[in-house]
Amino acid sequence: MTFTFGRLFRVHVFGESHGACIGAVVEGCPPGVPMNTEIMQEALDKRRPGTGDLTTQRRERDRVELLSGVFNGHTTGGPILMLIRNEDCDSTSYERIRTTPRPSHADYPARIKYGGHNDHRGGGFFSGRITAAFVGAGAVAYQILKSIGVEILTHTTRIGSTVLSGPVSNEQIRENVHRNNIRCADEAVAREMELEVLDAKRAGDSVGGIVECRVLNLPVGLGEPIFDSVESLVSHAMFSIPAVKGIEFGAGFRASEMRGSAHNDPMGVRDGEIILLKNDAGGILGGLTTGEQVVFRVAIKPTPSIAIPQQSVDLETGEAVTLTVKGRHDPCIVPRAVPVVTYMTAIVFADLLLLSRTNAPLSELNGHSGLLR
Amino acid sequence: MTFTFGRLFRVHVFGESHGACIGAVVEGCPPGVPMNTEIMQEALDKRRPGTGDLTTQRRERDRVELLSGVFNGHTTGGPILMLIRNEDCDSTSYERIRTTPRPSHADYPARIKYGGHNDHRGGGFFSGRITAAFVGAGAVAYQILKSIGVEILTHTTRIGSTVLSGPVSNEQIRENVHRNNIRCADEAVAREMELEVLDAKRAGDSVGGIVECRVLNLPVGLGEPIFDSVESLVSHAMFSIPAVKGIEFGAGFRASEMRGSAHNDPMGVRDGEIILLKNDAGGILGGLTTGEQVVFRVAIKPTPSIAIPQQSVDLETGEAVTLTVKGRHDPCIVPRAVPVVTYMTAIVFADLLLLSRTNAPLSELNGHSGLLR
Amino acid sequence: MTFTFGRLFRVHVFGESHGACIGAVVEGCPPGVPMNTEIMQEALDKRRPGTGDLTTQRRERDRVELLSGVFNGHTTGGPILMLIRNEDCDSTSYERIRTTPRPSHADYPARIKYGGHNDHRGGGFFSGRITAAFVGAGAVAYQILKSIGVEILTHTTRIGSTVLSGPVSNEQIRENVHRNNIRCADEAVAREMELEVLDAKRAGDSVGGIVECRVLNLPVGLGEPIFDSVESLVSHAMFSIPAVKGIEFGAGFRASEMRGSAHNDPMGVRDGEIILLKNDAGGILGGLTTGEQVVFRVAIKPTPSIAIPQQSVDLETGEAVTLTVKGRHDPCIVPRAVPVVTYMTAIVFADLLLLSRTNAPLSELNGHSGLLR
Amino acid sequence: MTFTFGRLFRVHVFGESHGACIGAVVEGCPPGVPMNTEIMQEALDKRRPGTGDLTTQRRERDRVELLSGVFNGHTTGGPILMLIRNEDCDSTSYERIRTTPRPSHADYPARIKYGGHNDHRGGGFFSGRITAAFVGAGAVAYQILKSIGVEILTHTTRIGSTVLSGPVSNEQIRENVHRNNIRCADEAVAREMELEVLDAKRAGDSVGGIVECRVLNLPVGLGEPIFDSVESLVSHAMFSIPAVKGIEFGAGFRASEMRGSAHNDPMGVRDGEIILLKNDAGGILGGLTTGEQVVFRVAIKPTPSIAIPQQSVDLETGEAVTLTVKGRHDPCIVPRAVPVVTYMTAIVFADLLLLSRTNAPLSELNGHSGLLR
Repeated sequence: MTFTFGRLFRVHVFGESHGACIGAVVEGCPPGVPMNTEIMQEALDKRRPGTGDLTTQRRERDRVELLSGVFNGHTTGGPILMLIRNEDCDSTSYERIRTTPRPSHADYPARIKYGGHNDHRGGGFFSGRITAAFVGAGAVAYQILKSIGVEILTHTTRIGSTVLSGPVSNEQIRENVHRNNIRCADEAVAREMELEVLDAKRAGDSVGGIVECRVLNLPVGLGEPIFDSVESLVSHAMFSIPAVKGIEFGAGFRASEMRGSAHNDPMGVRDGEIILLKNDAGGILGGLTTGEQVVFRVAIKPTPSIAIPQQSVDLETGEAVTLTVKGRHDPCIVPRAVPVVTYMTAIVFADLLLLSRTNAPLSELNGHSGLLR
Repeated sequence: MTFTFGRLFRVHVFGESHGACIGAVVEGCPPGVPMNTEIMQEALDKRRPGTGDLTTQRRERDRVELLSGVFNGHTTGGPILMLIRNEDCDSTSYERIRTTPRPSHADYPARIKYGGHNDHRGGGFFSGRITAAFVGAGAVAYQILKSIGVEILTHTTRIGSTVLSGPVSNEQIRENVHRNNIRCADEAVAREMELEVLDAKRAGDSVGGIVECRVLNLPVGLGEPIFDSVESLVSHAMFSIPAVKGIEFGAGFRASEMRGSAHNDPMGVRDGEIILLKNDAGGILGGLTTGEQVVFRVAIKPTPSIAIPQQSVDLETGEAVTLTVKGRHDPCIVPRAVPVVTYMTAIVFADLLLLSRTNAPLSELNGHSGLLR
Repeated sequence: MTFTFGRLFRVHVFGESHGACIGAVVEGCPPGVPMNTEIMQEALDKRRPGTGDLTTQRRERDRVELLSGVFNGHTTGGPILMLIRNEDCDSTSYERIRTTPRPSHADYPARIKYGGHNDHRGGGFFSGRITAAFVGAGAVAYQILKSIGVEILTHTTRIGSTVLSGPVSNEQIRENVHRNNIRCADEAVAREMELEVLDAKRAGDSVGGIVECRVLNLPVGLGEPIFDSVESLVSHAMFSIPAVKGIEFGAGFRASEMRGSAHNDPMGVRDGEIILLKNDAGGILGGLTTGEQVVFRVAIKPTPSIAIPQQSVDLETGEAVTLTVKGRHDPCIVPRAVPVVTYMTAIVFADLLLLSRTNAPLSELNGHSGLLR
Repeated sequence: MTFTFGRLFRVHVFGESHGACIGAVVEGCPPGVPMNTEIMQEALDKRRPGTGDLTTQRRERDRVELLSGVFNGHTTGGPILMLIRNEDCDSTSYERIRTTPRPSHADYPARIKYGGHNDHRGGGFFSGRITAAFVGAGAVAYQILKSIGVEILTHTTRIGSTVLSGPVSNEQIRENVHRNNIRCADEAVAREMELEVLDAKRAGDSVGGIVECRVLNLPVGLGEPIFDSVESLVSHAMFSIPAVKGIEFGAGFRASEMRGSAHNDPMGVRDGEIILLKNDAGGILGGLTTGEQVVFRVAIKPTPSIAIPQQSVDLETGEAVTLTVKGRHDPCIVPRAVPVVTYMTAIVFADLLLLSRTNAPLSELNGHSGLLR
């Protein structure tokens, strides 16, 4: 609710972009999950701005402190506090936006909503910086999923006008996505994408893109009917990432153009196991996982902070003004969204895995748990 | 959670396609909202299958019983029970699917998940029939929104290959959408869309489409930061509607192709009021309403029940089989999804409206409520 | 929340005393639990007013309709709707209390809270009649508990000045409690208690009492630390029963007089199993079950509806008035609270049992569920 | 849920007795509430062990860090992180209890529940030290309540055999309770109580007691019907405080001995305002506040950690052993429970105040909020 995500695996985020810290409390994680500062830091490092030209000049080391819920290298069953101190805040450029909202930022509605009490500096709790907390919490979730063999592969498929077209194998993603700064599974396309970002940057502009995520080796039947369908929970999670403006599963929007005979995925048997012969459903039927890989794509808008002058309004005088956004910003947020999508997805599926334990048939209640005499 | 939607305005659905009834309990509705059987029936009638060729031959009158929470024509503050008896069930054709899942239906993962205990007839609680409960509950929500002037306009913008292109005014939607069975704002396009549906039907096939929704006259600042953003809650709600496979807000997927200078919505002043000069954000910034209309589109897959033979598997023998789905089905679910989108959207915004009352600045706590001495 | 109880096994109640019906939707019940109308009716019949002199003259048959979530004699995993029509409403005596609150009823604060919109007849949704829904929902919960051998024994230990003193065995409760109308485990004391009730009734008065509940054969470790301790959830549930004004676990208030050396329960070994050598903790340590029986007592106030004239206020004129409460009321609600305590307790422990499955150590995640490949 | 308390004003606690820290994230606090480190520290200092003989020798300064959600001396509307570092941990004496549970502590069921993964040192997250987080979070809640004039008075009414009898005025509590270390409203009785604690301490033993709480100046109609009654939420909160074993409201257990004519509180008019002529209901009817002061009492068991040897079991060998609990413990936890009761109560009523804003009649929806155009 609001700053909390999850039914059973619950993530409570806190912090502001220019306050003392950001972080999360993870509640509901089962005991015995391998976890320590190194594992979490490794996840966070994937989200950190690189050293290249593609990202913000704000230099946060994002050193995580793991302050509760972990003991002897494993989770205890108690709440896990992860906290990252803000180190490189420069709030000087934010004084003006107290009264002059930046276009396409939360500034204007936030000021109305909170009556001016919210911390406006760097967007406060609306800042994309909060996604570091998503990654930290997701690192715990991913450990749960890994224990049953689940793998999440995420990659950039579009930057502005540059598109990764044609089929891409899981192996390609696994191999290539961390070899380039744009998180693309194809090296040649990655270079084009980088050029498009740099081109926008030179113009004082920014550019959007698309990220695709695949979740492999999921058991059949995860997801809950009606309101906690896989699509409902994944989309809820994805739209919590600032700048996401669209999502589609499997064939997605293309399904709207199709006939049922083309869209339906026939079933078959391979090596004695039931499979779907294709996967236009994106691995989800009736909101439940089918055993095929879950596939979805999210559309990410261009970073709203641009150096090009824009029209705004001074909220105190009511006068129209021209605003040039200062501060240090990513000309394209897409590559940094890639790990965020991965770890938010991990949170959703860890939660669904725990949920699935609560509605197993009654016959499984008797005897399976260490609790029962 | 699972069968419950909403934080404060909470909808608990129940029922199965071929059981005794379907319906909902609405919890958290404020007292004093005008409500009676007629108001709710009027909403439900919009979702009922028409008499034409476009829809299922199952003939449910969908007469609603309003059994609690309403007194003297207004809500009481207590839970509202709305219930619709199933009258025209024909379960004969469902015996086979107990062990032979219909492709692209929930049958297969549901059977695994529930160990065979779920009511498989007509999809049980996975049936699209549950959306009648969404509409009934949404009728209550809409009454709340109407009291502050909010209006929701929903229309069909694509059926298969037939697209409603070019700008469409709110007035056009308001006027035309109930004049044709396809719920399109343009009469000529509506006729083409109907032909495409009938064409699919003749072939024993089905077809998908796109529905657009606009929410007008919303106050500024609805939505909650991070996890209860407008986009998160609306998408969560939309993916609870069976067959939805994609959603986008404002420019949506097109935003991924844009530069920030083109995508950002400049701000201005008109008649002393702050406005956005265009609305690529779809009326939402930082997850909060901006005062512009909220605009989103959902992609709907073709009905999976088709008469054309399909490949499936007999779960008991493990043998591949060819399945022809019988039963009475809509060749295109899109027009009937239109009111469902409207009323699910109403549920989201009624909930957000109530939520917004809980985080108004402290100064408003003192004196505004009838409770306080 | 408000009309919903439970974390995973969730009970959503609805209905008013003089409306069309009362009932509940049970959400989160695992599939495969044996359930049918007979099982639920049997539970409800324990709560029905008897034919004797001790209870209300309102004659409700309380015939339950089981309208969803049950298929082939077992729960499906979907929401279970149970509904009881009100048949013998006589609302004539309630016209006056619209403006003249009955002392020690909810009338006065309810009118303020709901601005006059709540259904005031018979107390509306504040009526003790809602406890029939608790029992119906609890009948489902009890089926879950019975499958692992849990038993709940509840009995009356005090009526006004008449006290059941001395130790009472579980066997005595099991044998005797349904042999008398007062639900006392000792026949002689039961007769005295009945006399005290009849004495109060003759005087146009009412009388309170105490109910004790014991939960047997619970596994070790049910309950969740801090806010979902066994005591927190049980007390939350018990105070949802109208007229309950106190609760204590184990030694309870007597513990406040004791030294640690006397209160602490030493541990020992019997037949190779760890036991506690006495049970002043009431079967709960750190909010978790210890394997000993959970024991608690609830204090129930005298029925507020009495025939003796009382001082009240006419809310419209602001004048003091003398009120004589009419309607048909129990002179002592304690015996009818006995099954309500039992079934509310069942709801709490069924919920805790499901919760316990979500935080079993990670090693149990792998392989135990039918879901996992 | 588990480590979270509250519906709208939500407190998420974390930390272990001998880990790095304890603390809480407060979510759902409205913006504009005056808050800073000093206000919170002042609350925490009331709970700190004193310098006298009555309390533990563990010397924690309990310096609070306020790390998010506060800006310019007021809450922002975002989550508030409060954190207290543990400074004076001495875990040496806890090595043994890894396998030998201390009687009447959580050790035994916790080990079973968590499969040995929980941090056992000092009780881990079962430690009473977590109540410092309750106080910190409650300090925020109390600021909200103070803004509408609510006051909470808590005092010790029993220590072992020493009882504060006779009526005690609010003024006496307000004046005296912080003048003695036992938190008693009567100086003479306080001295007797202290002697009883010292007597127990000398014997290597501990002693229990009773705390009474009064909440003044509450509006009429706080509390939600059925499951979120004032009694349900207050009792839920109180049983989250380790060592609480009973609670009663108003006449409480004494009500079970009374007739309705004696127990019912007649209504009257004073200075044009409706009042209750006495308050056996403890300020609550139908789960809602009546405008009279809310009064309840909690029974607190003697500290389980005593120096006197006790019987336990070695869980690894299965052998009976004699255990002497070392570590630094309070011989009587009652005085330190007094502020904890106050601040937990503040959390409940701040939450109920916010909840009450969500079900005000519809007519109040229009216009009251700064959000609405």
